Amino acid sequence: MGRDLDRELRAVLRPDQISTSAGDLKKFAVDQGPVTDYREPVAVLWAESVTDVQAVVRLAGRHGVPVVARGAGTGVSGGAHATAGSMVLCLDRMDKILELNPEDEIARVEPGVVNADLNTAAAAHGLMYAPDPASYKISTIGGNVATNAGGLRCAKYGVTRDAVLALDVVLADGTLIHTGHRTFKGVAGYDLTSLFVGSEGTLGIVVGVTVRLKYLPTEIRTLAVFFPDMASATSGVLALGAARVQPCILELMDGASLKELDLRNGSDLARRGTALLLAQFDGLAAAQEAEIASTALVALGGSVNREDPDEAAALVDLRRHSRGMDVDSEITVGEDVAVPRSQLVHYVVALEEMAVRHGVGVRIIAHAGDGNLHPTFWVQEAGQARIAALNSALDESIHKALELGGTITGEHGVGQYKLRWLPLEQSVEVRGLQLRLKELFDPLGILNPGKAITGR
Amino acid sequence: MGRDLDRELRAVLRPDQISTSAGDLKKFAVDQGPVTDYREPVAVLWAESVTDVQAVVRLAGRHGVPVVARGAGTGVSGGAHATAGSMVLCLDRMDKILELNPEDEIARVEPGVVNADLNTAAAAHGLMYAPDPASYKISTIGGNVATNAGGLRCAKYGVTRDAVLALDVVLADGTLIHTGHRTFKGVAGYDLTSLFVGSEGTLGIVVGVTVRLKYLPTEIRTLAVFFPDMASATSGVLALGAARVQPCILELMDGASLKELDLRNGSDLARRGTALLLAQFDGLAAAQEAEIASTALVALGGSVNREDPDEAAALVDLRRHSRGMDVDSEITVGEDVAVPRSQLVHYVVALEEMAVRHGVGVRIIAHAGDGNLHPTFWVQEAGQARIAALNSALDESIHKALELGGTITGEHGVGQYKLRWLPLEQSVEVRGLQLRLKELFDPLGILNPGKAITGR
Ligand SMILES: Cc1cc2nc3c(=O)[nH]c(=O)nc-3n(C[C@H](O)[C@H](O)[C@H](O)COP(=O)(O)OP(=O)(O)OC[C@H]3O[C@@H](n4cnc5c(N)ncnc54)[C@H](O)[C@@H]3O)c2cc1C
Ligand SMILES: Cc1cc2nc3c(=O)[nH]c(=O)nc-3n(C[C@H](O)[C@H](O)[C@H](O)COP(=O)(O)OP(=O)(O)OC[C@H]3O[C@@H](n4cnc5c(N)ncnc54)[C@H](O)[C@@H]3O)c2cc1C
Repeated sequence: MGRDLDRELRAVLRPDQISTSAGDLKKFAVDQGPVTDYREPVAVLWAESVTDVQAVVRLAGRHGVPVVARGAGTGVSGGAHATAGSMVLCLDRMDKILELNPEDEIARVEPGVVNADLNTAAAAHGLMYAPDPASYKISTIGGNVATNAGGLRCAKYGVTRDAVLALDVVLADGTLIHTGHRTFKGVAGYDLTSLFVGSEGTLGIVVGVTVRLKYLPTEIRTLAVFFPDMASATSGVLALGAARVQPCILELMDGASLKELDLRNGSDLARRGTALLLAQFDGLAAAQEAEIASTALVALGGSVNREDPDEAAALVDLRRHSRGMDVDSEITVGEDVAVPRSQLVHYVVALEEMAVRHGVGVRIIAHAGDGNLHPTFWVQEAGQARIAALNSALDESIHKALELGGTITGEHGVGQYKLRWLPLEQSVEVRGLQLRLKELFDPLGILNPGKAITGR
Repeated sequence: MGRDLDRELRAVLRPDQISTSAGDLKKFAVDQGPVTDYREPVAVLWAESVTDVQAVVRLAGRHGVPVVARGAGTGVSGGAHATAGSMVLCLDRMDKILELNPEDEIARVEPGVVNADLNTAAAAHGLMYAPDPASYKISTIGGNVATNAGGLRCAKYGVTRDAVLALDVVLADGTLIHTGHRTFKGVAGYDLTSLFVGSEGTLGIVVGVTVRLKYLPTEIRTLAVFFPDMASATSGVLALGAARVQPCILELMDGASLKELDLRNGSDLARRGTALLLAQFDGLAAAQEAEIASTALVALGGSVNREDPDEAAALVDLRRHSRGMDVDSEITVGEDVAVPRSQLVHYVVALEEMAVRHGVGVRIIAHAGDGNLHPTFWVQEAGQARIAALNSALDESIHKALELGGTITGEHGVGQYKLRWLPLEQSVEVRGLQLRLKELFDPLGILNPGKAITGR
């Protein structure tokens, strides 16, 4: 870090808000996404107030130094990876719930509030903050907003964007703006709120979030339905739609994922089927909906465990935490495509076939209700040929998803890792428009450059 | 219209796609919003294809002539009012449902499809397009998208933005882009879709819309609850929240509105209470939720008609079509503020008080579940003093809504009429940002200039 920048930073932040220690530079160089271009930041900073964020951004602008906003660093697309010469700005100390208003059914929080902490606070009033990425115990609301995080419950309740009413954002020149409204509805001016949601720290830094809360359901019924193969399990997703029941959670796991879970938890899931569909229903009609669902799924060859009603709920918990088993590395890469629901069955069959053809392993878990799949491809060990096979399988899986009308990323964001696939999905005109938007918001290119969008 | 423009238009459109008749110029000069600056367009054009729209926009750019996109012209903020020297481009002939896919639970439509027609087509598959402005029988999906229309059912199902997955948009230079995704979830790139939703034809012309459909409920229960005063009725909204039931429709009407309805329909609603809360529940738990709601509302002094179960549903239908009674004019102006739910009761009390003080009439209907109110202020006849009183009351009602944490427009849009209030809600920084966005999308300022946003 340049001398001047260092001095000026120390004029606005306390020493314990700045680190240049080798350990921290290493620790904050990467999030949980694959690393293709390892770079350490020149400094790690911890903001404790909006003013801190404004001061840092202004200094960054003056010195032409990039700022990488960081919540909990649980992102899996490299969105929070440091880039050359950058400062990492951690928001996790801004962790106050500023307001929780049960009558208005909203909360206002600082960006560093952990998703689970907001949910705990809301639960005391019989409310919930619905979007629940499997990382909800560790990821921050600011990070969730910046990635437009999905989660298990979004099958019924929608994604982060659907829960966000208003934002406080520090722009690239240090200006603080307020977007959106405290009311459930509002259409004054352009929808800047949605533009910042999912923009991965490239358009502004989120320093305050107003969210709409939902009613915490008291009635919950969960079904664990084992199937002999993935094709029948994915047909189950359409069967539930045809039966007109709306699960709040609808998760799918294939046989390889079940084996992996067994290995880690000493369970015997894989013995019971080659695919598992977990369907949770909530609300006053939960029991009735579960009954309808059960009938529809059994008709497709599914088998429902009726002896142990708690098992299914325990399996949802296991699923919630199962992405942990797939930390990306050189030899293991988790994907995040989404396809239209009718294409789910074709897509899983294609994935299994392509893994065999490329000689790589694959296991599939999916937020099936949304058609959002997380196939994980892996090879046994590094080595040029194997990594090449892994990458070919990955590329083909992306092409296939797009061919079926899908998207390269359902919820994790483009970050840094998925940039190479973005032009497959977005036209040169759309990418050009996004670049011009980026330039409008951040003419100096200091906000998380090289992430989320690309002109190439 | 200039000679050259006329000739060039006739080279791309058929004669029956162009009108410059005095009758049409008058008819298409205004939508249903208040008229403060009456201007006739130089021509009215009917697009029948994406290519038509592109051709018109390109000609407009070359000749520096503004284009006002128009669906059904049911807007109530003057968003579709013609401006000086403009061409009105009607999209209502582009009325094909391009695809309705029950397995994917989506539909793709041209912009001129009428909301009710899409719903009829969806109903054949047991599906619905949820956002249902009271104008659903006449307004177009393109207009709904451009205004981010709300409706009765959005208490439970959300507004237009929540239903739109992808858009085809013709930009100011005639380029056609595709935004969003066919899948329920997707986070590739910036959320351009949301940016176009609600932009009132100022950023681009919507020529295709992909929407998510929802399950058409089979079970429906409706409650009509009469209250002795507006304060208890509005408390009912919070009581339902506290009882943790989620109506799909929650509408409020005051005594003056009931009287007006009686006058028009020969009913005797006003005799039965000074405020009416209409709550509709859908889904398998509808009966149970209605029972809980009924208990909560009776405890607040509400009276429920149990003898005639069909009456309540009929009242919802009446309500659906009741905005018709409030066509804006010089002496009658309907408002569209939204306030946080806890402020509803304070706001209605304040409205009644301020009407008396300004010597104007007021009647209130509200999408109460969303805190979205449509007070209509009126005076008996025109005349400078009365119009001044009307405007003072209007202005005060807007200030009060903002003071309570609300917005100047919950669903109708800023259009032309509400421009004067926008600076009360949005900071100079936000307005500046919006102007720069407008300039980025429309450097020549040909797309519906002078609407939706303002720098002043
Ligand atoms: C075990 C596990 C399970 C997961 N499950 C899910 C899941 O179910 N659904 C899902 O969507 N994701 C999931 N993820 C991915 C990840 O948790 C989400 O992307 C999450 O939203 C990231 O939050 P974070 O606080 O860790 O943000 P970070 O990783 O720190 O940052 C993510 C991105 O947001 C930017 N950013 C962070 N904070 C701000 C801010 N205040 N202002 C502006 N930009 C900011 C960063 O620059 C970066 O681009 C999972 C990850 C793990 C490790
Ligand atoms: C009786 C009645 C009841 C109503 N109830 C409601 C209600 O409950 N909720 C609600 O939100 N509104 C309501 N409205 C207002 C109005 O119906 C909505 O704003 C509706 O969305 C307008 O649709 P339209 O097709 O008539 O659009 P128009 O009035 O023709 O246009 C509206 C705006 O959108 C632009 N526009 C239209 N089509 C396009 C396009 N394809 N591309 C780009 N821009 C375009 C226009 O330029 C204009 O700015 C009501 C109106 C009436 C008369």
